[in-house]
Amino acid sequence: MDVLPSWRDGALKRAILNFVDSVTDPNSACYVEPDKRLATFDHDGTLFVEKPLNAQITFVKDRLFNDDPEPRPATGNFFERLQTNFANWFDDIESDFKNITELAFRNVTPEQFRQASNSWIQTAVHPKFNRPYIDLVYKPMRELLSFLHKSQFDIYIVTGSSTDFIRPWSEQAYVIDNHHILGSSLKTDLEEDENGRLELVLEPLPFYFANGENKVRSIERLIAEQPIFAFGNSRGDIEMLRWAGRAENSFCGLVHHTDDIREYQYSPDPAIYLGDCTLDQAEKYQWQVVDMKNDWLEVF
Amino acid sequence: MDVLPSWRDGALKRAILNFVDSVTDPNSACYVEPDKRLATFDHDGTLFVEKPLNAQITFVKDRLFNDDPEPRPATGNFFERLQTNFANWFDDIESDFKNITELAFRNVTPEQFRQASNSWIQTAVHPKFNRPYIDLVYKPMRELLSFLHKSQFDIYIVTGSSTDFIRPWSEQAYVIDNHHILGSSLKTDLEEDENGRLELVLEPLPFYFANGENKVRSIERLIAEQPIFAFGNSRGDIEMLRWAGRAENSFCGLVHHTDDIREYQYSPDPAIYLGDCTLDQAEKYQWQVVDMKNDWLEVF
Repeated sequence: MDVLPSWRDGALKRAILNFVDSVTDPNSACYVEPDKRLATFDHDGTLFVEKPLNAQITFVKDRLFNDDPEPRPATGNFFERLQTNFANWFDDIESDFKNITELAFRNVTPEQFRQASNSWIQTAVHPKFNRPYIDLVYKPMRELLSFLHKSQFDIYIVTGSSTDFIRPWSEQAYVIDNHHILGSSLKTDLEEDENGRLELVLEPLPFYFANGENKVRSIERLIAEQPIFAFGNSRGDIEMLRWAGRAENSFCGLVHHTDDIREYQYSPDPAIYLGDCTLDQAEKYQWQVVDMKNDWLEVF
Repeated sequence: MDVLPSWRDGALKRAILNFVDSVTDPNSACYVEPDKRLATFDHDGTLFVEKPLNAQITFVKDRLFNDDPEPRPATGNFFERLQTNFANWFDDIESDFKNITELAFRNVTPEQFRQASNSWIQTAVHPKFNRPYIDLVYKPMRELLSFLHKSQFDIYIVTGSSTDFIRPWSEQAYVIDNHHILGSSLKTDLEEDENGRLELVLEPLPFYFANGENKVRSIERLIAEQPIFAFGNSRGDIEMLRWAGRAENSFCGLVHHTDDIREYQYSPDPAIYLGDCTLDQAEKYQWQVVDMKNDWLEVF
């Protein structure tokens, strides 16, 4: 039975199959015990469409301009500028994050945030594919996750998106337990209501942004194991791929977005490939590159 | 079969058994599905001896004065003051933490820290009980953890001690998976050696101190479920117990150290019971109090 039916037969698919064979065959010199088979995946652009705008940012945008039933505060010029050019606001996350998050998530508990995310992902329609975002998981990557699960890998999503943005639908989209999402998070306030009941609410300040070096820190702090399989697609994944590449026998993969018909073509895109180009890194560190247009028979 | 043989038959033991019965019996009005049975335990003083000095602080002290093979840097007066009155240095964690951690763990990776902790806990001998620290788990609490496991509870240790201090021996001491420790942690530096290989090393700065309100934040951020069973022993556990007490049907317990012969008697101790006394809180919030001297037939 073909375990990766949406992957074209070729060198890349063979490399994946050979690697998994080599670490799961007890007679192989590269055999790895099941409890040491750790796989880490980036989310946006690796498992899930991230264009024309990252899903969580689109979620926040929709909430600000479409969903929120409360009237806008009189922020005047700030709110108008935000509406005109929303995407650019997140270019400078440090300075704009607080204002936007405060507008979108004031007095919201983490559980309410998760419910809002889940409701949005099931219903919001993607402008190019005309289907709900929940359907925009890459089919070949779902097959890969399933294949790794069956091969007794422990799989984590390590993402710059918020843990609580992905958590409520990770089981449905990826068959990945909601505790296996290592993402970003906001600070929280512990407040006491008039009945003395404690309540946590989100603060509009980042607690942790799980990107770049912080992906490695999250893996070490929360899993404390060496990944032997990792997949990413952008600048923010370089350190995680290099970290997985430390293992004596490892597989590191990079999704290259080369398909402007079925998905998007966006490399080199300075908005994603900041500084070092990941394709150069792929060659330097011998990562396996998925050419989406040619390696995937189906995308969704 | 008695599932809690080291607990004296009485009101407290009945309260535990009745609570677990009520949430696991499908015919009970208080029935809770297995995947919602979350239990959270403090560590030091609740599962494990914390006198005469907290275990992790003793570990650091031993490392500074006994174990470290490298010569001390010429810190002169600082190091002498440290040696004279070590315990008091940690009274002001903010200001002393950096100096002490830098001395004890310079150029140490998280994995080396875990190995050092595991080696210490197996061999260092407690001054009162004259046995290795690994043996100083309270036997009644081990029985309680085992009983909750069998009753399909998901159990986490939520502790001000470092996650990586407890992680390497949590399976041995508590039959708790090393990913079920939510503790404190240090910052880390991601460095590149001359071969371009990445290495994470500890920085002598706290990243997160999981005490008090931060215990609730850790539970929400990392588990994202409501605990229905919680146990603590000190000021740093009040918020966690109140958080568990939010659940419609919950059990909140407090270990009261009343046994100066078999363990220690230290309440009210201003070093532990800062500000509000947890016994007052116990009455106010209807927490169950373990009177160690009377409720435990054996301690270790």
